Amino acid sequence: MSSNQPPVDPNLLAWISNEYHDANGSRFETLDHPPSPLEFSRLVHISRPVLIKGFIPPALSRWTDDYLVDRMGKRPVSVAITPNGQADAVTTSPDGSQYFVEPLVEQMTMEELLDCIGQGSSGSRRDEVLYLQSQNGNLYTNSYFEGGVSADCEFETLRPDVPAEVPWCSDALDKPPDAVNLWIGDGRSVTSVHCDPYENIYTVVRGAKHFTIFPPTDSVWMLERSYRHATYVRSITADLELIPSLDTPQVRWASISNSEIEGAAPTNTHPIRITVRAGETLYLPVGWWHHVKQARDVTIALNWWYDAETQGLNWIGLSLLRNLENNDHSEESE
Amino acid sequence: MSSNQPPVDPNLLAWISNEYHDANGSRFETLDHPPSPLEFSRLVHISRPVLIKGFIPPALSRWTDDYLVDRMGKRPVSVAITPNGQADAVTTSPDGSQYFVEPLVEQMTMEELLDCIGQGSSGSRRDEVLYLQSQNGNLYTNSYFEGGVSADCEFETLRPDVPAEVPWCSDALDKPPDAVNLWIGDGRSVTSVHCDPYENIYTVVRGAKHFTIFPPTDSVWMLERSYRHATYVRSITADLELIPSLDTPQVRWASISNSEIEGAAPTNTHPIRITVRAGETLYLPVGWWHHVKQARDVTIALNWWYDAETQGLNWIGLSLLRNLENNDHSEESE
Repeated sequence: MSSNQPPVDPNLLAWISNEYHDANGSRFETLDHPPSPLEFSRLVHISRPVLIKGFIPPALSRWTDDYLVDRMGKRPVSVAITPNGQADAVTTSPDGSQYFVEPLVEQMTMEELLDCIGQGSSGSRRDEVLYLQSQNGNLYTNSYFEGGVSADCEFETLRPDVPAEVPWCSDALDKPPDAVNLWIGDGRSVTSVHCDPYENIYTVVRGAKHFTIFPPTDSVWMLERSYRHATYVRSITADLELIPSLDTPQVRWASISNSEIEGAAPTNTHPIRITVRAGETLYLPVGWWHHVKQARDVTIALNWWYDAETQGLNWIGLSLLRNLENNDHSEESE
Repeated sequence: MSSNQPPVDPNLLAWISNEYHDANGSRFETLDHPPSPLEFSRLVHISRPVLIKGFIPPALSRWTDDYLVDRMGKRPVSVAITPNGQADAVTTSPDGSQYFVEPLVEQMTMEELLDCIGQGSSGSRRDEVLYLQSQNGNLYTNSYFEGGVSADCEFETLRPDVPAEVPWCSDALDKPPDAVNLWIGDGRSVTSVHCDPYENIYTVVRGAKHFTIFPPTDSVWMLERSYRHATYVRSITADLELIPSLDTPQVRWASISNSEIEGAAPTNTHPIRITVRAGETLYLPVGWWHHVKQARDVTIALNWWYDAETQGLNWIGLSLLRNLENNDHSEESE
């Protein structure tokens, strides 16, 4: 790769942001049934969000609380715990500094998790927010698709309910997903705005997800900064404490806040708000910024991440829009 | 559309040109048989050139000189005539000024045309160069596909030999072509380097076409300039005379010369040389610069132009690489 990438003039980035919006608007297509592989390939080329109905994994009809508890039994499940529902987000520590903070991860049973989340939760940790969001391919990882020995999978007993691949997407992209994830949370959890180097197929199984998304051309308004890394740790008094990491590199993350996005979105941005309900699937193209809230009650979702195409112009364009080195796309999250 | 597009820093354009080449190289794919619509859709997304074998319109086996003369009879055919084989090219006039010059167009029969071109030509106009390159959809225009009344078509009698659509391309792009053209010339005609706002499917029927192509990221090295417009006109003495146009707007055209491209390509560019022989088809993606020479003997080719996708990022990216307003892509030529 070449080095010494010249920075892109912010005036040019602002112009591109407006030009893209003038040409493409804020509309998104809704399909009443899943696309054919060819139709989906065309949609990937355009790289605009699409709400897709009628893609119904078996989980949709099966996943009652009783079913999930029964299938999972005593198996431990890794759950993200924060005091405020903001896992993987920029947070101000008690000393006034800002950090990119990762959640405490604790293991519990599915029954314990479901007892602690949702409107009617009566668990013992009501002041903490739980979110199953391990996002490491907790259902299927690429080693599964490569036929290698699969790493331990916490949710192996739920696999019969979730297809390893989205057939129309795998056929369109000519590859299996890189990771398939299960997400379980409630209205107290928020995913802070970020983008991923993946084509993302996001299906809601129960509840609803409220996406606020921004095109890659709005990258300039996301004000990405480098933040020191920290993690929530359980203190001796059992409280959650934000502990700066010693050796973890800084994390590049958008600096616009959740409250900015949940209210009127920041000036100059071009947000599209899409609610994805049970039985609906969002195609979220590579490089699109997204902030995600959930319905108050338990929300369960699945997502399939497919590696984005790195040949051609688009990948370099996405990097330039973020003033990013070509191979330096930030880590994923939802 | 927004206005006041800020110019893109030439250092940034130079960086993009190298970065694109580092990431994509100068390789091109060769397919032994035509792609399926889905395969072609993926290729369009990557937007790299592909040499395709096995797409064989009936013209391939039918178009001998005798057949063409017989089918066309006395029907007039519009032929571009220049003193030097450079139709639609920047040319220095006798007064030393540079113009973008369009050819004289004269009508003749197919027999007269074929008599005047090729290695063994013995026609009366050996010091002039003839090239059938009307490129106005001389076989099929979009009015044909829209079912309207078709304009007069000089080559109507040859239509049974040329499919109106390339099936795998029309299916992939979900639209018919915008124009289908017939090209007949010889080694004396050259098409000067330029790019088109079309996805281009280019099939050689007889002879060979020598393409030198450059990715859109090399636009910065093409040194586009605005040139005054001129046309070749037949003077009273029957010579070809370059006459500046009075009311025609200036034409934006690359200023690197044919001789530069035919020798070692200009410094910093990343040329790919592809020879397309009879029975072979080149997929030349939107925005790729191309310089085209032909085999010495008669070369006959067909091309299908499909409107490029203007939704999404790619179209804006192509405009920016040329420091061009979004809706100002220059006119087509081969």
